[in-house]
Amino acid sequence: MEVFRWPVRVYYEDTDSGGVVYYANYLKFMERARTEWLRSLGFEQDLMRQDEGVIFAVHHVSIDYLHPARFNEQLEVTARLVEQKRASLTFAQSVYPLAQASRPCCSARVRIVCIDSHQFRPTAMPENLMKELPNVG
Amino acid sequence: MEVFRWPVRVYYEDTDSGGVVYYANYLKFMERARTEWLRSLGFEQDLMRQDEGVIFAVHHVSIDYLHPARFNEQLEVTARLVEQKRASLTFAQSVYPLAQASRPCCSARVRIVCIDSHQFRPTAMPENLMKELPNVG
Amino acid sequence: MEVFRWPVRVYYEDTDSGGVVYYANYLKFMERARTEWLRSLGFEQDLMRQDEGVIFAVHHVSIDYLHPARFNEQLEVTARLVEQKRASLTFAQSVYPLAQASRPCCSARVRIVCIDSHQFRPTAMPENLMKELPNVG
Amino acid sequence: MEVFRWPVRVYYEDTDSGGVVYYANYLKFMERARTEWLRSLGFEQDLMRQDEGVIFAVHHVSIDYLHPARFNEQLEVTARLVEQKRASLTFAQSVYPLAQASRPCCSARVRIVCIDSHQFRPTAMPENLMKELPNVG
Repeated sequence: MEVFRWPVRVYYEDTDSGGVVYYANYLKFMERARTEWLRSLGFEQDLMRQDEGVIFAVHHVSIDYLHPARFNEQLEVTARLVEQKRASLTFAQSVYPLAQASRPCCSARVRIVCIDSHQFRPTAMPENLMKELPNVG
Repeated sequence: MEVFRWPVRVYYEDTDSGGVVYYANYLKFMERARTEWLRSLGFEQDLMRQDEGVIFAVHHVSIDYLHPARFNEQLEVTARLVEQKRASLTFAQSVYPLAQASRPCCSARVRIVCIDSHQFRPTAMPENLMKELPNVG
Repeated sequence: MEVFRWPVRVYYEDTDSGGVVYYANYLKFMERARTEWLRSLGFEQDLMRQDEGVIFAVHHVSIDYLHPARFNEQLEVTARLVEQKRASLTFAQSVYPLAQASRPCCSARVRIVCIDSHQFRPTAMPENLMKELPNVG
Repeated sequence: MEVFRWPVRVYYEDTDSGGVVYYANYLKFMERARTEWLRSLGFEQDLMRQDEGVIFAVHHVSIDYLHPARFNEQLEVTARLVEQKRASLTFAQSVYPLAQASRPCCSARVRIVCIDSHQFRPTAMPENLMKELPNVG
């Protein structure tokens, strides 16, 4: 699968008094990229919830923090689908300074699960989404 | 009305790379104090939504930032009801370092409105809440 | 002065369980717009801190919340300089759904002060910034 | 080692429009618990930075999300030191509803590294901290 890329600028809201991006905030950046990846395939999560009764929930994150990003840096966030099951998707994601892909801020695996928005239980992903997903086995 | 007080510790999550508490985060601290004030009167907002179909929304904030708070400081947040109408409450609130009430980090007026949780329109506050409120005219 | 505009997408991170954007997060959106406005004039805040020893701190916000924004909405944030003093700038800012400028989510006045980054005291804005500012009296 | 416990209340700021605590925010809760654990041993991180020139940075998180927490829930966060090296500490942490330890919201491993606050490189933990740590091999 091609790697999806999404730009993120570091604002004060993202940093902490250590002078760098607060560790939990990289998870926000990664979710923005997953959301925009879905949108690039033609899927809006508010409509998916309304029309299909499904939402996505994160079930697992494993993340390594490597080189901290600083205030005002221009970053790029990647998302690459690496595993696809009936009710879950696993992504490899990283965040790095623009044009410094060899020196990532952090690198993660993120598994999201398709959830029935009423019962909060895993459910099969909508057919129309399955059809659009790249074949990752 | 007596002033309600609620302790808040400054963690990394609250600060920014300027070395101080990020300006939007004082609004989080103030909401915690309003929530705990309501709880101290016997009202849980999740139950109010479920049983009475009402939620509170902030309609106006006017805030002055005076002396920045830093990482690891122990703060106190105050909430004092200063105006009460059929569908709204106005609070005077401040945040200051513990035992330094004369040197507040910030000082605000916050007006919250009681909202019908389905239609998102202002609605009269529940009777049982009105009865518990201090008389502020 | 021309109005500066900056797009903001609402992600899950911005919302709360009331179903709308959390009230403090509009202040994040407004700061992003002010930061990008400064950048559009040629000023990077990390360099201003490093080279001139100044940072900007928010000293006052007065904000009215009008129509809540929801998950996945595409918003636009405006920033218009309305007052300029030796050490402070005041902006009129609003946030509204794209192409619905007549139905803003919120509308605010925000005063920022130029601060000496070491002593945390107000100081005159750098000359080169003053020269680039629109004349607002 | 004894398990350290720290109470956390879920406020609106912590939730998202999915109706539950936003996934990145559990990392904030876990950091609060680690901070309070350090404080319980007699160490204040602002003083450690000032006096010893060290800060702690998170280097790895592996987290499973199990049962979402909701607005207004009273949670408890645990921290248990499971590995100790010269420059790093690894914790097992979980978050669960008060008195429901058998049904955790999430469960994580978190490795933090002691960093020289000037050079941002790993450095040995201060002797006086090493002496206070429980023996975990």
